[in-house]
Amino acid sequence: MSERVVLAYSGGLDTSVAIGWIAEETGAEVIAVAVDVGQGGEDLDTVRKRALECGAVEAVVADAREEYASQYCLPALQANALYMDRYPLVSALSRPLIAKHLTDAAKEHGATTVSHGCTGKGNDQVRFEVGIGALDPELKVMAPVRDFAWTREKAISWAEGRGLPIDVNKKSPYSIDQNVWGRAVETGFLEDIWNAPVEDVYSYTADPAVPRDADELVITFDKGVPVAIDGETVTMLQAIEQLNRRAGAQGVGRLDMVEDRLVGIKSREIYEAPGALALINAHQELEDVTLERDLARFKRTVGQRWGELVYDGLWFSPLKKSLDAFVADSQQHVSGDIRMTLQGGRAVVTGRHSEQSLYDFNLATYDEGDTFDQGMAKGFVQLWGLPSKIAAKREQRG
Amino acid sequence: MSERVVLAYSGGLDTSVAIGWIAEETGAEVIAVAVDVGQGGEDLDTVRKRALECGAVEAVVADAREEYASQYCLPALQANALYMDRYPLVSALSRPLIAKHLTDAAKEHGATTVSHGCTGKGNDQVRFEVGIGALDPELKVMAPVRDFAWTREKAISWAEGRGLPIDVNKKSPYSIDQNVWGRAVETGFLEDIWNAPVEDVYSYTADPAVPRDADELVITFDKGVPVAIDGETVTMLQAIEQLNRRAGAQGVGRLDMVEDRLVGIKSREIYEAPGALALINAHQELEDVTLERDLARFKRTVGQRWGELVYDGLWFSPLKKSLDAFVADSQQHVSGDIRMTLQGGRAVVTGRHSEQSLYDFNLATYDEGDTFDQGMAKGFVQLWGLPSKIAAKREQRG
Amino acid sequence: MSERVVLAYSGGLDTSVAIGWIAEETGAEVIAVAVDVGQGGEDLDTVRKRALECGAVEAVVADAREEYASQYCLPALQANALYMDRYPLVSALSRPLIAKHLTDAAKEHGATTVSHGCTGKGNDQVRFEVGIGALDPELKVMAPVRDFAWTREKAISWAEGRGLPIDVNKKSPYSIDQNVWGRAVETGFLEDIWNAPVEDVYSYTADPAVPRDADELVITFDKGVPVAIDGETVTMLQAIEQLNRRAGAQGVGRLDMVEDRLVGIKSREIYEAPGALALINAHQELEDVTLERDLARFKRTVGQRWGELVYDGLWFSPLKKSLDAFVADSQQHVSGDIRMTLQGGRAVVTGRHSEQSLYDFNLATYDEGDTFDQGMAKGFVQLWGLPSKIAAKREQRG
Amino acid sequence: MSERVVLAYSGGLDTSVAIGWIAEETGAEVIAVAVDVGQGGEDLDTVRKRALECGAVEAVVADAREEYASQYCLPALQANALYMDRYPLVSALSRPLIAKHLTDAAKEHGATTVSHGCTGKGNDQVRFEVGIGALDPELKVMAPVRDFAWTREKAISWAEGRGLPIDVNKKSPYSIDQNVWGRAVETGFLEDIWNAPVEDVYSYTADPAVPRDADELVITFDKGVPVAIDGETVTMLQAIEQLNRRAGAQGVGRLDMVEDRLVGIKSREIYEAPGALALINAHQELEDVTLERDLARFKRTVGQRWGELVYDGLWFSPLKKSLDAFVADSQQHVSGDIRMTLQGGRAVVTGRHSEQSLYDFNLATYDEGDTFDQGMAKGFVQLWGLPSKIAAKREQRG
Repeated sequence: MSERVVLAYSGGLDTSVAIGWIAEETGAEVIAVAVDVGQGGEDLDTVRKRALECGAVEAVVADAREEYASQYCLPALQANALYMDRYPLVSALSRPLIAKHLTDAAKEHGATTVSHGCTGKGNDQVRFEVGIGALDPELKVMAPVRDFAWTREKAISWAEGRGLPIDVNKKSPYSIDQNVWGRAVETGFLEDIWNAPVEDVYSYTADPAVPRDADELVITFDKGVPVAIDGETVTMLQAIEQLNRRAGAQGVGRLDMVEDRLVGIKSREIYEAPGALALINAHQELEDVTLERDLARFKRTVGQRWGELVYDGLWFSPLKKSLDAFVADSQQHVSGDIRMTLQGGRAVVTGRHSEQSLYDFNLATYDEGDTFDQGMAKGFVQLWGLPSKIAAKREQRG
Repeated sequence: MSERVVLAYSGGLDTSVAIGWIAEETGAEVIAVAVDVGQGGEDLDTVRKRALECGAVEAVVADAREEYASQYCLPALQANALYMDRYPLVSALSRPLIAKHLTDAAKEHGATTVSHGCTGKGNDQVRFEVGIGALDPELKVMAPVRDFAWTREKAISWAEGRGLPIDVNKKSPYSIDQNVWGRAVETGFLEDIWNAPVEDVYSYTADPAVPRDADELVITFDKGVPVAIDGETVTMLQAIEQLNRRAGAQGVGRLDMVEDRLVGIKSREIYEAPGALALINAHQELEDVTLERDLARFKRTVGQRWGELVYDGLWFSPLKKSLDAFVADSQQHVSGDIRMTLQGGRAVVTGRHSEQSLYDFNLATYDEGDTFDQGMAKGFVQLWGLPSKIAAKREQRG
Repeated sequence: MSERVVLAYSGGLDTSVAIGWIAEETGAEVIAVAVDVGQGGEDLDTVRKRALECGAVEAVVADAREEYASQYCLPALQANALYMDRYPLVSALSRPLIAKHLTDAAKEHGATTVSHGCTGKGNDQVRFEVGIGALDPELKVMAPVRDFAWTREKAISWAEGRGLPIDVNKKSPYSIDQNVWGRAVETGFLEDIWNAPVEDVYSYTADPAVPRDADELVITFDKGVPVAIDGETVTMLQAIEQLNRRAGAQGVGRLDMVEDRLVGIKSREIYEAPGALALINAHQELEDVTLERDLARFKRTVGQRWGELVYDGLWFSPLKKSLDAFVADSQQHVSGDIRMTLQGGRAVVTGRHSEQSLYDFNLATYDEGDTFDQGMAKGFVQLWGLPSKIAAKREQRG
Repeated sequence: MSERVVLAYSGGLDTSVAIGWIAEETGAEVIAVAVDVGQGGEDLDTVRKRALECGAVEAVVADAREEYASQYCLPALQANALYMDRYPLVSALSRPLIAKHLTDAAKEHGATTVSHGCTGKGNDQVRFEVGIGALDPELKVMAPVRDFAWTREKAISWAEGRGLPIDVNKKSPYSIDQNVWGRAVETGFLEDIWNAPVEDVYSYTADPAVPRDADELVITFDKGVPVAIDGETVTMLQAIEQLNRRAGAQGVGRLDMVEDRLVGIKSREIYEAPGALALINAHQELEDVTLERDLARFKRTVGQRWGELVYDGLWFSPLKKSLDAFVADSQQHVSGDIRMTLQGGRAVVTGRHSEQSLYDFNLATYDEGDTFDQGMAKGFVQLWGLPSKIAAKREQRG
């Protein structure tokens, strides 16, 4: 039996060409695997047929949208994961899921190698290869674009030479990665970091500067999971999709940033993540109401580390798993309603309600009903400040 | 000679009454100290005269706006200090400065006690008393509102009984603290955390929902200090004031949050900080361009701890001082220009330029001129993922 | 029915006197509760009778040694919890367990108040009261020694006046707290921190300077739990007891330190914890072999915070609970054998064996069988150092 | 003019052979650089002559012992830097200093390449290359052992073929790296982690199990710098040397550990660091007396990160520099005397004295002179426990 190679297949020029090139170069049979993480675009059946026409012996397509939302986006939401305090890990979240589908396909089809089309200066090569190694350490990896220096020009010439069914003229100036948690865009003119993005760059979000009526909604969480919007039950996938639509329509969710890549360089990135950012905003607000102070403070450290790990391709690492246990435990009381107004690029929380609230009106109020014993405060302040006071006495002696 | 008490004086009802009450209760001479931190309102001379009319033996007024901006707001900016990732420490920053002026006045006028008008359930009592203890550990503290249960009703009756020159009918529904770094508002109906703020609550910011032409500006930083706006040299104070005006006019800088107080309760707070938030946004962006990755990651932890310490009244603590040394060192290369658009409640960075940039076009570009050696990536990925891979082999054995 | 007060009862002078004093002062019925956490000394039945003779309406004694070892000491072991990197939290661990027995007794016997004999400058008042508040927030607390300024002299005079069955002359120069996890000693002459401890201070440990034959043993762990010593199955309690005996006989486990108390002062403390420190040493070593690097690094931060929380009386806090979830998850692979030599105050690990080991001989060896691909290293080093290199280029331009 | 290559030269077989091999292979002139960091062994002049005899065009030898002690070991001491809580970074500290001497020599002699003899599975390749890249990003690096797969056998055959003046039969079973801060040993039979070290492995330390009279000493620190031992002024180098001798003679300073290497594998290492560990012990103790609690707690996090960075080859990184600023600031009050007993492998502090002490006898004592106001404690405890109490009320409602 021939060697078999599983290829992460997008349907585009590079990976279509890779099917034939890998087959010729290695003599292996190529199995193309395409995973739907909510990226939109062509339907999967079209993609599947193209893979076969390009020479794949098998073409596997998987609708992984529910799995992606509940197993990958939800933990990110519960960690309030924002790399560099801003980026909700759009591409970083989908890569480990795709790696899982690739290794599953390799096992099912008896492949010994997995191939991807990533370059050598991005993060995604790391996320794919480290993920694959963590799921099946015996699998080999092949990265033609990186290790054999494939360029777009070589790919076009190959495709034309073999008469592959691909429109090689369909060239977007943008390099795009998108899924239901958000959309990432890179492009030449934005590599000058003084240049502002143009409206044309965006697809998930409307221009926030255009005046519109506000959209108000209520998101209901149960133990850290969004379970209803405006009283209607939703799955995690539906929650993201509805908020992508409604928050995107109000211009919420655009990011323009200079980012620290794992490979050691800084890059300019444009993101759109209307649903992700609206959900994280609401979830964080509910945590402010329901998490005890020390837990909330330490959880920020955990969330930062979680985001760095996932950004850095370590989704399947032992530390990520133990951080997940911390986060999961912290969500026990994160239940309640958050009212939010979407307008003009802003997602503003205007009300919170929770049976699990730690906000105690009677302790907080300055009006009637105040139950806070102010007599306790004097002693607290004295001892709280005692270390600083002892240090001050030292300075005086000094 | 009589005992002398220095009183933190605002010019309002509570502290005006306190002058006489302290004098009667203790037989001490009262020295009123009012500090201008950019809170606006009455001029300091009026305030000074009122203190004397209310019975103070001395009334000290200090214009501390430049000191406040350069010694208190600037370190907060350089730490990107946001308590709970949001609140720029408006009141928390001014209290240690006021404490310093109070202890200086106590020394100058031979007072043995300092008095303030804070309640026992807020943070400010801690910030005042811990600050005073850290500056002069021998000073005693008197807190009539907390320790003698003064209420507004008692204060009015006292003021009317003595004929003090105060308009006791001038009752705002809002409890307000403001300075040049921002404005804090509490009020009864917002103690129900489901209620949204009304427009009337705000003073530093216009309604972001009203359509307006955008305002674009360029902020120039030198080693972490904002030194020019649109090419015009500014002091730190001028930078804040100008951005309060311009960002406030575009509705930038409103916060509505449930906050963890040091005394152990959660409270609802409304803040406005247009200048502070626009500056922190711009400064953070310039750091993204000029700080090395590991430094940037650790600095988030430092900034979080810095914010917690200052919020918790520990401005003069030894840890705060050592964190300052870290932050100061990190600012060496934070120089350059940030272009920002203010509109509709958003302060959006659209361009960055820095001679100190670590963004390297030739390493980042996917176009011509690419100098990144992709051949290095394969080995990097292998070793980066090796610990996860070894752990995966264990699972397989397992 | 009378009010009832549950009193934490040790059998000693202070708490024996407190029984009658509380009854007289408040008219309440006093229920004495004594908890055996392995402190040794009198048998619990003697203690129980004395409580009744001193006027308690009920006297509850509980053998909580197994519960203490498995529910309190074991989590501390798994966290490698050492406050200030040294102190294994001897007293800090027993207080929350005692608080639990006190609140259970209060519930069972219908008491509304819990009383303890701690002073106002120690940590234990905090651990008791915060623990009690976290278990039953409606219970009131009474602390006669602290709040009514009881002294030893007053207690003796009271005991003599009432003819209580206590030998008031049995005065040790040492203030001692002990349980199976260790022993804490304070005494007057050690309040001068230049004075060295004398041999007389110690009880759990022999003089390490006396030459003896070494004792070698093998501890077997299963998922972070010590389950056998020298091949013989042990419970957690038995493991601690056996190691207290064997490590103590070799002089292992003495600590002499200046410690940061929660109430803001530094104090001098002498501890002995032969079993605890030998176990933590062995457990840490097994983690070094079985935990992945990033997990091990972050777990140090978690362990430090865990130790601070428990030291600071926050055993029952939400953060402690979520940290526990992290630690528990991390222990999944901490299984194997540790061989250790006890001698001359040293507990030295000399061998490790684990089916769950991440140490891979073939990757580590420099001899035959080496499977490490050194060709990968060059690329790794290049990209690992790239951020420093880019920063260096900036310095050169600079 | 020929290309020139600077070679890190030890005088041993591998680097002696490398001189000629590099010259032949590349046509370059080789400049050998040997740095004395206190490793002992041959005198530098002998080493210098051998380099020339082996074909070097220049041979530079530098006595860097004082520089190493004061610029590299001292910051490690002040950070209490212990990788994995144990290893005082012996080799990790010397590599950046050697890298500095290599780049200095490259600059002086017009070399464009630096060469070292490290393998591809160790940490030192990273420390050298990242250090060199951070000091002169234009320099190229050549690593013959790693990149050209040199083995001992090839080296011997080359040396014999060219008649190089090296005793190729002098083969130690141990791979050793030593300098004044400590000594590292690897060897085949210890690659089985169940095997215990044999006495023969050690050189800096005597057998701790042999009974000896104790050695007592007093170390005086000034702002974190050891400045005297037993009242005699010492330099940092003299302090380390004297303590290596005295602590080593008592068997202090042996480590046997399984360590997480940066390249992703675990390795077994034996270390001896009598002076380093005795100094860190004393310094930590003085910090316990002189650092305020919050500073001490955060400094542990800083020290851990500092140690990881240095272990990971990032000595010259921007983050390391900013952490240094934190540590330096923290040392301001770390002055005083530590009395220590060395015996039987133990370095035990028995007394501390400091004019900068924060230990306050009058606050700590339970005897006469107690100035601690216990009345303050009740309020402190109440508010400290309030968040836990509010959370408990939620559980009750729940």
